[in-house]
Amino acid sequence: MKTILLIGIGPGDPDALTLAAVKAIRRTDVFFFLEKEGEGKDSLIRFRHDILAEHATDRPYRIATGASPKRDRASADYRGAVEDWRRRRTQVIADLIDANMDDGETGAFLLWGDPALYDGTMQNLHDLIAEGREDIAFTVIPGITCIQALTARHRLPLNRVGEDIVITTGRQIETGDPAAVRNSVVMLDSRDAYMRLRDQTDLDIYWGGDVGSPDEVLLSGPLDATADRIAETIKAQRARKGWVMDTYILRRRTRPRDRD
Amino acid sequence: MKTILLIGIGPGDPDALTLAAVKAIRRTDVFFFLEKEGEGKDSLIRFRHDILAEHATDRPYRIATGASPKRDRASADYRGAVEDWRRRRTQVIADLIDANMDDGETGAFLLWGDPALYDGTMQNLHDLIAEGREDIAFTVIPGITCIQALTARHRLPLNRVGEDIVITTGRQIETGDPAAVRNSVVMLDSRDAYMRLRDQTDLDIYWGGDVGSPDEVLLSGPLDATADRIAETIKAQRARKGWVMDTYILRRRTRPRDRD
Repeated sequence: MKTILLIGIGPGDPDALTLAAVKAIRRTDVFFFLEKEGEGKDSLIRFRHDILAEHATDRPYRIATGASPKRDRASADYRGAVEDWRRRRTQVIADLIDANMDDGETGAFLLWGDPALYDGTMQNLHDLIAEGREDIAFTVIPGITCIQALTARHRLPLNRVGEDIVITTGRQIETGDPAAVRNSVVMLDSRDAYMRLRDQTDLDIYWGGDVGSPDEVLLSGPLDATADRIAETIKAQRARKGWVMDTYILRRRTRPRDRD
Repeated sequence: MKTILLIGIGPGDPDALTLAAVKAIRRTDVFFFLEKEGEGKDSLIRFRHDILAEHATDRPYRIATGASPKRDRASADYRGAVEDWRRRRTQVIADLIDANMDDGETGAFLLWGDPALYDGTMQNLHDLIAEGREDIAFTVIPGITCIQALTARHRLPLNRVGEDIVITTGRQIETGDPAAVRNSVVMLDSRDAYMRLRDQTDLDIYWGGDVGSPDEVLLSGPLDATADRIAETIKAQRARKGWVMDTYILRRRTRPRDRD
């Protein structure tokens, strides 16, 4: 058997690693890094190297690198493009395992945040096993998500009394009913989707860029008064380092708020 | 100033603690334990003691214990009962701080899961500060939630393509529209609320009791075929140790599933 560990490493703060993640790192023979070309995400790779440098022991380990396939973002068929990307990514992972792991060894992916939230690797491994790869077994080790880093830094309870919490994406915010947003966490927004809701004058936003990392920026306030500042911050971070990972909470006020 | 640390300690697995939580424990002068009387939750207190025994250093620390106020669960006025409970809990915390902390010291609460998700302590401290307690400052350290433990153990990606994730409570499931449930995480269900949805034949359930702890039980399958087994498991755990902390995901099938 080949054992794969999907290790959640949190949102970019080395201290957000769990003790279970550290133990998993210490029993890994080979780490798989999927690198995204031309997206300026070098610092994401560097963070993984820093974690290994800090927590790996004298026990020898290897690093195997593959190219992460790109999703066709121009396609009109969103679901089809996601399915195609998923198939190609499964193949890249199969090739990495075949080329780099012996029977009885342990491989690991160091995954941003938590492996169960907006990361495709778990599904890739389920797909591989469903295709008949009975030599592969995998285990998931949870990690702190950017949502938890965001609520901690804003010191904001995520739940309110008698109300659901919704976790959604920029894409859904762009196409959904603005009036239905009451307490929503928005991830994967690369298109300033919050701008679409700025005419909803009773929404507050709690925004964070690269929360938990040295580049962290936090902004919050009434959405209509804060949206421009957030857009400028995202633009400045993108110009400076090529990317920003942002998360935000949109919350409808239940009582009037003093504008400050 | 008095500094309060709200430390998320995860869902019951000592290895789910983060490195940040361990560091926070090591700089705490006094730990506050709010004990619930007569609920047989001794093992929750024991878990906190075990964590201190494992991670505290030679640096001396104290433990101060208060009685957690009970919420009036018989009240017809749910929001009123929650508000009243919150006010009394804030007072218990203020008394604990006043009786046990000197200026310049650091106090800490070891909170189940993550301090931002269904735990009142953050709101209690906001209330205290809003009442004028300018001598109190607090910091939040995220912890792994039972949701993350559940998805890891079931190896279930939480998100699906083009669909929101809803985090809700047993109370909301009891009163909400059954047809609206597509991909919902249910917490704080003490009344078998999933039973109400068992006539929805295209729902799957992924259930976990005390996930991450030595008492962990996992069950999953079509809701209509699994609900009875879950109810029996909850009853058996309650009979054995007085309580069970359970979480589950209700998910509508998007394609026919083979019943196995």
